[in-house]
Amino acid sequence: MDRAGFAIGIDVGGTATKLAAADSSGLCLREIEIPTHAEHRPVRFVRRIASVIRLVESELGGPADGIGVGLAGDVDAARGVLRFAPNLRLWNGFNFKRAFERAPVSGRGSGSRRVVVDNDANAAVWGAYVMEMGRRPSDVVGITLGTGVGGGLIIGGRLHHGATGSAGEIGHVKVEHPGLRCRCGSRGCLEAYAGSYGIVSRARKLLRTSAGRKSPLKDLAPDPKDLDCRVLGLAAERRDPLALRVWAETARYLAIGISDLVVLLNPDAVVILGGVSRAGPFLLGPIKEHLAREPFRTAFEAVSVRVARNPHWGCVGAALLAWEAAGAASQAGA
Amino acid sequence: MDRAGFAIGIDVGGTATKLAAADSSGLCLREIEIPTHAEHRPVRFVRRIASVIRLVESELGGPADGIGVGLAGDVDAARGVLRFAPNLRLWNGFNFKRAFERAPVSGRGSGSRRVVVDNDANAAVWGAYVMEMGRRPSDVVGITLGTGVGGGLIIGGRLHHGATGSAGEIGHVKVEHPGLRCRCGSRGCLEAYAGSYGIVSRARKLLRTSAGRKSPLKDLAPDPKDLDCRVLGLAAERRDPLALRVWAETARYLAIGISDLVVLLNPDAVVILGGVSRAGPFLLGPIKEHLAREPFRTAFEAVSVRVARNPHWGCVGAALLAWEAAGAASQAGA
Repeated sequence: MDRAGFAIGIDVGGTATKLAAADSSGLCLREIEIPTHAEHRPVRFVRRIASVIRLVESELGGPADGIGVGLAGDVDAARGVLRFAPNLRLWNGFNFKRAFERAPVSGRGSGSRRVVVDNDANAAVWGAYVMEMGRRPSDVVGITLGTGVGGGLIIGGRLHHGATGSAGEIGHVKVEHPGLRCRCGSRGCLEAYAGSYGIVSRARKLLRTSAGRKSPLKDLAPDPKDLDCRVLGLAAERRDPLALRVWAETARYLAIGISDLVVLLNPDAVVILGGVSRAGPFLLGPIKEHLAREPFRTAFEAVSVRVARNPHWGCVGAALLAWEAAGAASQAGA
Repeated sequence: MDRAGFAIGIDVGGTATKLAAADSSGLCLREIEIPTHAEHRPVRFVRRIASVIRLVESELGGPADGIGVGLAGDVDAARGVLRFAPNLRLWNGFNFKRAFERAPVSGRGSGSRRVVVDNDANAAVWGAYVMEMGRRPSDVVGITLGTGVGGGLIIGGRLHHGATGSAGEIGHVKVEHPGLRCRCGSRGCLEAYAGSYGIVSRARKLLRTSAGRKSPLKDLAPDPKDLDCRVLGLAAERRDPLALRVWAETARYLAIGISDLVVLLNPDAVVILGGVSRAGPFLLGPIKEHLAREPFRTAFEAVSVRVARNPHWGCVGAALLAWEAAGAASQAGA
């Protein structure tokens, strides 16, 4: 075969699903976004995605070399099962690996697909690790900032899954005691402070107490209901004091979580991803100042904290995980 | 050679140094304890230990197959240098690996020793992993409870050192914000609450406020200066309410630290070691109760939390690390 080959990466969120075809270097050849329709049954979702895959396959002139699926939830990566996802509740317990393996392949019938299923944050962190860091550092922690706070661990150059595939859930490290209620049901989790819902509710509270005064933030969001992290980022760019204060607080909570993972794991690098990481310029400075005050110097001096240049590596990362599995399989066969 | 072979493990603390000769299965053949004399220069310490090693070698009929050194401080395991140790300040920056490699060997002159240097908690956790868990679980976190709180990580069946050899410092995970001052200089660290100095100072404070009332604890330690973790353990066995309260609080702080490492690492097991772990019966129940309330079920149901049967695996663990390195070297040579 003289065509270069491609893998399909699929990033499944509660609202939208993104699909990308990427070659083994991560170069993106096609990108498609469709609604997830989490209210449908999962087999229907797989059938719909499979037809998109066949479309891409016919455009690119052959079957995909592998399929990587990143799911927004607790995933049993070994079996390919979505264990639990708050935003994909109807799909909990569904075996996505088996379903995609059995989906028909262009011109080949079915049953011959190589499918990898993982947590969406793991896929995104793997994408950033390969594409932005060239796999150079050995140990990297990725943090995804979105509605929730997720993460992934690279240890010894490989994704670390832990006992049940749940490793890297930095959003549920405790940063206050007892602290605010998190959506997971616990209290004081980083996510309750640095997930977009935590950030926005803190900003709304501050807005209410600062009634009357004019500010760039109030110009951008006259109705507090319009307030979101994008608006808070724009307001911070205009030096809005309230927005800057909210980002500084968010940075402080992130710094507590990062300091915990630095003393535990002593990583080479921490990389921040996800939509909310666009506010990176207002987070990175304060985070580094907090970490510079930690007395445990060796580990804190060794770690490089950065914001990913591309906040969304989920699809490409999932495709790269499929390439990784294909490589491991061909090595095992050799 | 028909003799079975042995490695020497050395556990260097601020006050005492323990030395053990162990075969490759970890069976202890000799054990010796001598004062550390941290006020001497490190070359003098190495010379003194080397003569003890030669004594053991002559008793056991041949040179040791390797030497493992566990140091109570921040260790650069790759180079074998003690970077920083609060209780061995005169020795900071000393290269123990080189010094022990060059120390004379019985009947062979010098220069032929195989030496491994690591953090003392890493050595102890490795000892517990091999001797009590038979290396079965893939990912284990060990926590050492003593004056300070240390730890070590086993990931994929191997000690995880991290970027600079400082991984596993669970004692400096934050459990209160800002919280009590820790001896590392930071605030709110687990060690400030679960290190013996934190436990004892909490107990003394409670004792002062409960003046007058009789209790088993006051019988055991009429002078608050006599209060230590051993006494608090004995008092708890006699159902002393104050001692039980101190252990329950300690368990709560430990549970916060353990919950952080469970969501981050999703380990198969957590094992608690060190002198203070003798109070395990008063810690383990409350820790498990706290963890059972964490809503992130998959990771918390997967983890087994236990107290090591032997709290002190430091020496044997260091000897086993030397065996490990010898095995790796002979594999590399084969």
